Amino acid sequence: MFEESDRKLMIICSKGTLDMAYPGMVLANAALMEGIDANIFFTFWGLDMITDAKMDNLKCTPLGNPSMAMPNGMGIPNIMSMLPGMTDFSTSMMKKEMDKLGFPPTREYLQMIADAGGKLYACQMTYDMMKLTEDDLFDEVEGVLGAMEFLEMAEGAQVIFV
Amino acid sequence: MFEESDRKLMIICSKGTLDMAYPGMVLANAALMEGIDANIFFTFWGLDMITDAKMDNLKCTPLGNPSMAMPNGMGIPNIMSMLPGMTDFSTSMMKKEMDKLGFPPTREYLQMIADAGGKLYACQMTYDMMKLTEDDLFDEVEGVLGAMEFLEMAEGAQVIFV
Amino acid sequence: MFEESDRKLMIICSKGTLDMAYPGMVLANAALMEGIDANIFFTFWGLDMITDAKMDNLKCTPLGNPSMAMPNGMGIPNIMSMLPGMTDFSTSMMKKEMDKLGFPPTREYLQMIADAGGKLYACQMTYDMMKLTEDDLFDEVEGVLGAMEFLEMAEGAQVIFV
Repeated sequence: MFEESDRKLMIICSKGTLDMAYPGMVLANAALMEGIDANIFFTFWGLDMITDAKMDNLKCTPLGNPSMAMPNGMGIPNIMSMLPGMTDFSTSMMKKEMDKLGFPPTREYLQMIADAGGKLYACQMTYDMMKLTEDDLFDEVEGVLGAMEFLEMAEGAQVIFV
Repeated sequence: MFEESDRKLMIICSKGTLDMAYPGMVLANAALMEGIDANIFFTFWGLDMITDAKMDNLKCTPLGNPSMAMPNGMGIPNIMSMLPGMTDFSTSMMKKEMDKLGFPPTREYLQMIADAGGKLYACQMTYDMMKLTEDDLFDEVEGVLGAMEFLEMAEGAQVIFV
Repeated sequence: MFEESDRKLMIICSKGTLDMAYPGMVLANAALMEGIDANIFFTFWGLDMITDAKMDNLKCTPLGNPSMAMPNGMGIPNIMSMLPGMTDFSTSMMKKEMDKLGFPPTREYLQMIADAGGKLYACQMTYDMMKLTEDDLFDEVEGVLGAMEFLEMAEGAQVIFV
């Protein structure tokens, strides 16, 4: 590990929930540790992951996700998931579990990835759609890319859409 | 751009929401503009994108998506998202934004992609499951493919599952 | 078909709903029938697909999925989707359709895939997060892998994240 490699990973993060923020970060981080080039392209709701005012408050909701369970293993009926407080409850549970396992929160994880040479890009179209400016973005974001630039960069890469 | 390339993109569209309809179309369109071969395979809820009676009415719901925000940037609590009218409201907001940015609606976008040489295919299994017939499909759909045919076509391609 | 191939498919299953369980299984099974090496890596809610106590009871909810329709083709308003019973209704409808089309339920499908040489792996991080033990897993699961091991195995493969 840490040896040279000509492999390249292009990860597209399109979701803004806490649970779906992790797969892209875990893969990017693991790739960098393997000497694989890793780039993350944030689009649609995934832009929340690199929006300074939102990245520390990603949420995880049991609504529409029958897999999410109470601590006793019972599923949460949608009619209960909908209650105010349930999203906060699920979010804080997942944060605690991630922390116990030694996985850093979003901002720290992305910082680690950037420090290890991973590149973070915002998708131009959705950046415009959400009326973001450079000031809104996490400092480590390398730039804002259009889909054509993304595809040029993706030549020869394994592309993973989360 | 527009030069020859031996790259090929196989995009699988499995979602029927307006927001998740765009990533596949944007990537296919950008690929074609780069001279990259682009094929889209529509499966499960993604079939709505090529179902004549549904493709003009894809919706986008804030329910279960804590990233979707009110115009004032505040998140929408699930208990409010659930109210009749909220899905229509979010949908019309996204349509307006896409239009302002010059991105065409689904039907026009897929027509552009087909005109530029992109190929559109329906997934046999889910086409059968939803009891669709050829008459139900958007005119530009090239055909209905099984998973094995899809995989044969995907040889040497970058595959993106949306 | 069934001829030798040097192609390899790495499928990541991250969802625990019945509808999103199928794309990965269908692709893995089709790959094996084409002589393509197929491995499935189960992470986050996808672990439900290989958790003995859950894999027979995956659910499919219309909540937050405006594509899911009543038998009469009408969409289901979120306020109705939320009612107790609607998730069970949608789930049993999809199970019936899959069965009619000859697609096996999750356990049988994964058994078929394993019998045909497909390999099933659990993701270490989320396996720990959900406090699973080996006894909780479906018998055919080959092992528990970290993200780095997954990436090593994915060298030269087409990677599909569901």
